[in-house]
Amino acid sequence: MERTVREIAEAIHAQLVGDGSVRVKHVGSIRSAKSGDLVFAQNEKDLQAAAASSASAVITGEFGAGGAGTRMTGSTPLLIAQHPKLAFSRAANFLYPPAKHAAAVHSSAVVDPSAKLDESAAIEANVVIGKNVHIGARSWIGAGSVIGEDASIGEDCEIYPRVTVYPGCVIGHRVTVHAGAVLGSDGFGYVRDAASGRYEKFPQIGQLVIEDDVEIGANTTIDRGALEVTRIARGTKIDNLVHIGHNCQIGEDVVIAAQAGLSGSIVIEKNVVLGGQVGIGEHARIEEGVMLGGQGGVLPGKILRGKSEVFWGTPAHPLREYLQQLAALGRLAKRNR
Amino acid sequence: MERTVREIAEAIHAQLVGDGSVRVKHVGSIRSAKSGDLVFAQNEKDLQAAAASSASAVITGEFGAGGAGTRMTGSTPLLIAQHPKLAFSRAANFLYPPAKHAAAVHSSAVVDPSAKLDESAAIEANVVIGKNVHIGARSWIGAGSVIGEDASIGEDCEIYPRVTVYPGCVIGHRVTVHAGAVLGSDGFGYVRDAASGRYEKFPQIGQLVIEDDVEIGANTTIDRGALEVTRIARGTKIDNLVHIGHNCQIGEDVVIAAQAGLSGSIVIEKNVVLGGQVGIGEHARIEEGVMLGGQGGVLPGKILRGKSEVFWGTPAHPLREYLQQLAALGRLAKRNR
Amino acid sequence: MERTVREIAEAIHAQLVGDGSVRVKHVGSIRSAKSGDLVFAQNEKDLQAAAASSASAVITGEFGAGGAGTRMTGSTPLLIAQHPKLAFSRAANFLYPPAKHAAAVHSSAVVDPSAKLDESAAIEANVVIGKNVHIGARSWIGAGSVIGEDASIGEDCEIYPRVTVYPGCVIGHRVTVHAGAVLGSDGFGYVRDAASGRYEKFPQIGQLVIEDDVEIGANTTIDRGALEVTRIARGTKIDNLVHIGHNCQIGEDVVIAAQAGLSGSIVIEKNVVLGGQVGIGEHARIEEGVMLGGQGGVLPGKILRGKSEVFWGTPAHPLREYLQQLAALGRLAKRNR
Repeated sequence: MERTVREIAEAIHAQLVGDGSVRVKHVGSIRSAKSGDLVFAQNEKDLQAAAASSASAVITGEFGAGGAGTRMTGSTPLLIAQHPKLAFSRAANFLYPPAKHAAAVHSSAVVDPSAKLDESAAIEANVVIGKNVHIGARSWIGAGSVIGEDASIGEDCEIYPRVTVYPGCVIGHRVTVHAGAVLGSDGFGYVRDAASGRYEKFPQIGQLVIEDDVEIGANTTIDRGALEVTRIARGTKIDNLVHIGHNCQIGEDVVIAAQAGLSGSIVIEKNVVLGGQVGIGEHARIEEGVMLGGQGGVLPGKILRGKSEVFWGTPAHPLREYLQQLAALGRLAKRNR
Repeated sequence: MERTVREIAEAIHAQLVGDGSVRVKHVGSIRSAKSGDLVFAQNEKDLQAAAASSASAVITGEFGAGGAGTRMTGSTPLLIAQHPKLAFSRAANFLYPPAKHAAAVHSSAVVDPSAKLDESAAIEANVVIGKNVHIGARSWIGAGSVIGEDASIGEDCEIYPRVTVYPGCVIGHRVTVHAGAVLGSDGFGYVRDAASGRYEKFPQIGQLVIEDDVEIGANTTIDRGALEVTRIARGTKIDNLVHIGHNCQIGEDVVIAAQAGLSGSIVIEKNVVLGGQVGIGEHARIEEGVMLGGQGGVLPGKILRGKSEVFWGTPAHPLREYLQQLAALGRLAKRNR
Repeated sequence: MERTVREIAEAIHAQLVGDGSVRVKHVGSIRSAKSGDLVFAQNEKDLQAAAASSASAVITGEFGAGGAGTRMTGSTPLLIAQHPKLAFSRAANFLYPPAKHAAAVHSSAVVDPSAKLDESAAIEANVVIGKNVHIGARSWIGAGSVIGEDASIGEDCEIYPRVTVYPGCVIGHRVTVHAGAVLGSDGFGYVRDAASGRYEKFPQIGQLVIEDDVEIGANTTIDRGALEVTRIARGTKIDNLVHIGHNCQIGEDVVIAAQAGLSGSIVIEKNVVLGGQVGIGEHARIEEGVMLGGQGGVLPGKILRGKSEVFWGTPAHPLREYLQQLAALGRLAKRNR
């Protein structure tokens, strides 16, 4: 959608410097910007590169205000914002409002008559919806997804193609789930019969609750609780191919990068950031604001704490200790050569 | 299904202490037990907590027999079992008998006329079944699953939605496969043409055989053999997002936690336990009863042995050595600070 | 398909030693060869084992020429090739020409009328094809796959069941994608609003381009670019459950083993080999010909270089240094015991 720079400035509450009538069609990167593109620059170097590009407008920081920006960029209109990258994200949402899916149930979808679908919901081809399912207003269910009985999906959700939601899951509002994700599968719990040596299944009859504004990546799996509830709290973002085991409690605004794995009954408090391929043992607790670097490992039952403390390695240590160990080992190996 | 405590005691061969006419509807955890719930307690502390909860009955160990249990719990009926958690699992199966899926082929399923489906099988919406497929008695194929030609699925299997079974796979009885799993995909084998530098595909035309009582987690992938057979033996339990490469031989009653990865031609003997995110190189052998801790790594061609021996780390060492190395490194780093 | 040894020799340009009229039906392994099987032997020991097996013919190296081979094998016909394993792979392709899928659109497929499907394409049951999709000649779309609008798939592609292709992806010729893979999903990029502490989505509106002759494993996920393009270049082979983040540039003839994970904006140059469960941080660069061993880790922004150099460990070191560190740590732990 084409917009003037002035319209964008108003939409994102940025200060306009330059010609507000310039028209913008797309967001782009400085490196590949074309005429009609809006780009962002977080520092002077980027701002100069933006000016040298074909971009039609630049979102930049307060360092670009008061003439400093125009000295660098000449006639390219600027949008001054406190946090240029955030402003740019919002400008993109303004330029590309989320696709409106036509409110309709595709003729090939198989919907149980007891399901309650809001009349503004969009149900794509080959979707299968079980008994007593509830789908809220303006939610979109992508082609081939399967929603098990008694599951509930809130308003304004985007469920991409080929997602499986097991029976009884509760999904809040504005939740995005990418293709192939599996929500609410049985947890991995068995009891061994000492007599026969065989494993028997421990009941996996709990629930999965996903709160508002969560995003879940492609082919990620989240298990239901064994007897209780697995919970993903508001605003948490989960990347592709992540595994979250039964009974985990994930707090608000947590970030979990790709291929991280959480075994059962783990507590992740709010504002935690987990790097890619992190592995966490059962009953561990990661306290508020901790950051755990990629491939880091936490043993069962351990606690990591410290707001904004960064941990690294297996078993995870505070970054400074981890680096000291790496350095010590490097020196030792060199001495022994 | 509501049952009396006496009925449960009989079903699980437990000794009843107290009022056998008390009625139970659900299994639950001590922490969140409600009236009508059956819980289990493996030690005195848990038994006292159970008594203080609203649970209607408690399964506990022999330590609770002979009046000791009732002194702790008062009037709550007790079910005394040698292994309370196992007895609890069995009680849950008694209270929640596996869902009976109506024997029917959904009108939207696409079934090749040459396929042989037992008349008691349940084929859900949008399932696709290829030529000469065989599906045994009482097996359930969840919505959207695709069963390739010449594949065979035994009796009493549960194939959750959106599973793919490649052509020619053989699946035994009482096998459970969770949503999104891919069984029998091509192995990862190429031969490089030195002249062109390009990779050409080595034939991946073997088979995948899954024996009875195996459970396979969501979005797990198991490759067929290259020229021979990939085999998962009876009773083995595999968690979510696990990868098992071509030609692997997995023994009986093996446990493989989430995101573990096995490259090609690996032998895992019976009763092995592999932790989450374990990685094993090709042609390695893990001998009977070995336990390998989470994120552990085994180099190609290596052998781990020792019944009930616990290994940890990359490359995997016996736990004691691993801990000695960690401790030595920690001390060294401290000294160097 | 049954062939004479002479026909095979001609097809793979091998030198025939012995009776060219012997008929072969299958390729097999030496260990389980039956009459009618063709096997390969890369050394004298294997060649003797092949001769002792029931195999009907053997592909072997030049060491078997000039009578040496027949002294070992007696009357079994031999096919002498410079690279026996490569010749065997080509013989398998000759014996089992790729399945020809009948050119047809299954009646249960849901195809947007604006899509352009070559008349020789094969579209299986329950496939969903969006607006303006293009599918090239002889390409096969497996059951239940979903191809988003404006996506393009070239000629002679094999898209296995239940693959999701997000809108706008461009896939070249002779590309194979295994079941459950997700191509072109949104990248994992957010900007935090310092005021609210909440994450807002950075635009993920770039593209995914997959060039010719790429193979992609089951349940692998590859994200589209944020603003630019994620690219997988010609001939690259990717195993199961791999994650490739937004903006990655993967060169030609790269091999990526199962469960490897690449975060965003990574450059992998041509001829690189990444082991299983490798993890690479954003903006890292792996230069031409590097090999990185299984579970190896590369920190964000790092560069690995050196043709045919092997790296191992986290953080990745050249193999020799890695082994020195392991040895030094082992000695230190022993001394401290």
